Amino acid sequence: MTTTLLAVLGTGVVDASTPVARADDAGLIRGDGCFEGCRLRRDADGHVSIDKLEAHLARMSRSAAALAIEFDEPAWRGLVDEALAAWTGEDEAAVKLLLSRGSASAGVPSGFVWITDLGPDYARWRRDGITVVSLRRGIPATAFADAPWLLGGVKTLSYAINMAAAREAERRGVDDVIFVSDDGVVLESPTSTVVWATGTATDGRTLHTTPTGDTGILGGTTQHRLYANAAEAGWRTTYTLAAVDDLHAADAVWLVSSVRGPVEVTELDGKARVRMPEVDAEIRRLAGF
Amino acid sequence: MTTTLLAVLGTGVVDASTPVARADDAGLIRGDGCFEGCRLRRDADGHVSIDKLEAHLARMSRSAAALAIEFDEPAWRGLVDEALAAWTGEDEAAVKLLLSRGSASAGVPSGFVWITDLGPDYARWRRDGITVVSLRRGIPATAFADAPWLLGGVKTLSYAINMAAAREAERRGVDDVIFVSDDGVVLESPTSTVVWATGTATDGRTLHTTPTGDTGILGGTTQHRLYANAAEAGWRTTYTLAAVDDLHAADAVWLVSSVRGPVEVTELDGKARVRMPEVDAEIRRLAGF
Repeated sequence: MTTTLLAVLGTGVVDASTPVARADDAGLIRGDGCFEGCRLRRDADGHVSIDKLEAHLARMSRSAAALAIEFDEPAWRGLVDEALAAWTGEDEAAVKLLLSRGSASAGVPSGFVWITDLGPDYARWRRDGITVVSLRRGIPATAFADAPWLLGGVKTLSYAINMAAAREAERRGVDDVIFVSDDGVVLESPTSTVVWATGTATDGRTLHTTPTGDTGILGGTTQHRLYANAAEAGWRTTYTLAAVDDLHAADAVWLVSSVRGPVEVTELDGKARVRMPEVDAEIRRLAGF
Repeated sequence: MTTTLLAVLGTGVVDASTPVARADDAGLIRGDGCFEGCRLRRDADGHVSIDKLEAHLARMSRSAAALAIEFDEPAWRGLVDEALAAWTGEDEAAVKLLLSRGSASAGVPSGFVWITDLGPDYARWRRDGITVVSLRRGIPATAFADAPWLLGGVKTLSYAINMAAAREAERRGVDDVIFVSDDGVVLESPTSTVVWATGTATDGRTLHTTPTGDTGILGGTTQHRLYANAAEAGWRTTYTLAAVDDLHAADAVWLVSSVRGPVEVTELDGKARVRMPEVDAEIRRLAGF
């Protein structure tokens, strides 16, 4: 049974330990490329697919365009199909699609599909929720207005700050981070979208998340699906510039991402939150989890 | 004659087209690592060395510590020696030292030394100077205060914004960029330090550059050497929070980096600058070029 699988653009499935990037690959030396993190599922009939594949390919196409890297969508679809057909691991797994500007000496973009088992933490996070600390992101909430070179909303490979924030969370003994702008606006998590609920005890139940655009945050594919399904289920869905205090005052807060799904925040900046198991279960279901 | 050379940490010199990073290498998938760009020179006796190697290794050690990546300095010194001994290319070349957190499946950091010829642009830039546009960096000049997770001053692999800014410069028909904070402070260039001179016609001749620290800019090894030598030659050397207008008013402005050296700015935001050939020659000499 596979636990990791690697498929290389232009080559196909290869041994997962095969080195894929040359020493002058711009993805390696400059973080100059983009990626998607997706969820693989095998259904009861044994069919393997990627959740929201169209949304992921569309976002990757936008990221590639913002970076001026060629994105050969038919080739990517073929590579994804080949990788999924070769997967013999668990019924749920994480899939990374990675596109780099490539090696100057090779002269073409490099890309690959990487599939791995989830590991034990995911079940725990989904069941028990997560503890979170808010961290300053060093930018105002309007940082990305009219400055395309700052790559707002582009899911680049340059995630060193996101990884450093995750290490800071670990140092503080919590699971994850919510980035806040220097003018106090809730932005996003290093690898998730922040969503919160208000009015759940009334007929005014509303989901909130931070607007994309000037804030530079990434539009979440799972948040989009959640919003579409929640609207059909009678929720109001809004884009809100909020402060951390608004999260404290909210009925429930989730970090939402494609592989982990929505996970409820059970503690924020040291303050425990009262869990809302029924609302949490509904939100997970509406997000496809 | 070599024109590119690759040496891999733990392995040594290999064919330069050998792929070096696995698909789960954190340097590739997260820009999670650090690097140095250095200048190789062969002296009249045929001895090949790296300029300011100690300063580069010291900065790489600091970058690695900030990222919590092991930096095995003796191993790196051995690898650099091996690479330099194998170099049979031009008398001046660019050397990249790259350290990544590595592949989770391999469990150790990955690193390599990559040497390449300079190409024809370097001679032209040094001789003719460069044209520059200032671009907003989306952060205030104090963004990095008390926020080590923002990795201020750390030379990470997450350079996607730097590369996007370089493409923006190309779109605008200029050679390079000076980043400016959202509160109007001159920061740095995507791959250089900004240095400017005032008082060159008087006995008050002074070199200025932006302070590191809260600004998050990288301390330049070539700027440091320039400052040390300039102080001995009678220049005052200061760290100044300046505006773009201060650059317009300065006697001369340079972008200073390890491989290209100091190159004089001949145009800033569309305004031509009067060149100062004698001062420029002195600054290049004081910086070791």
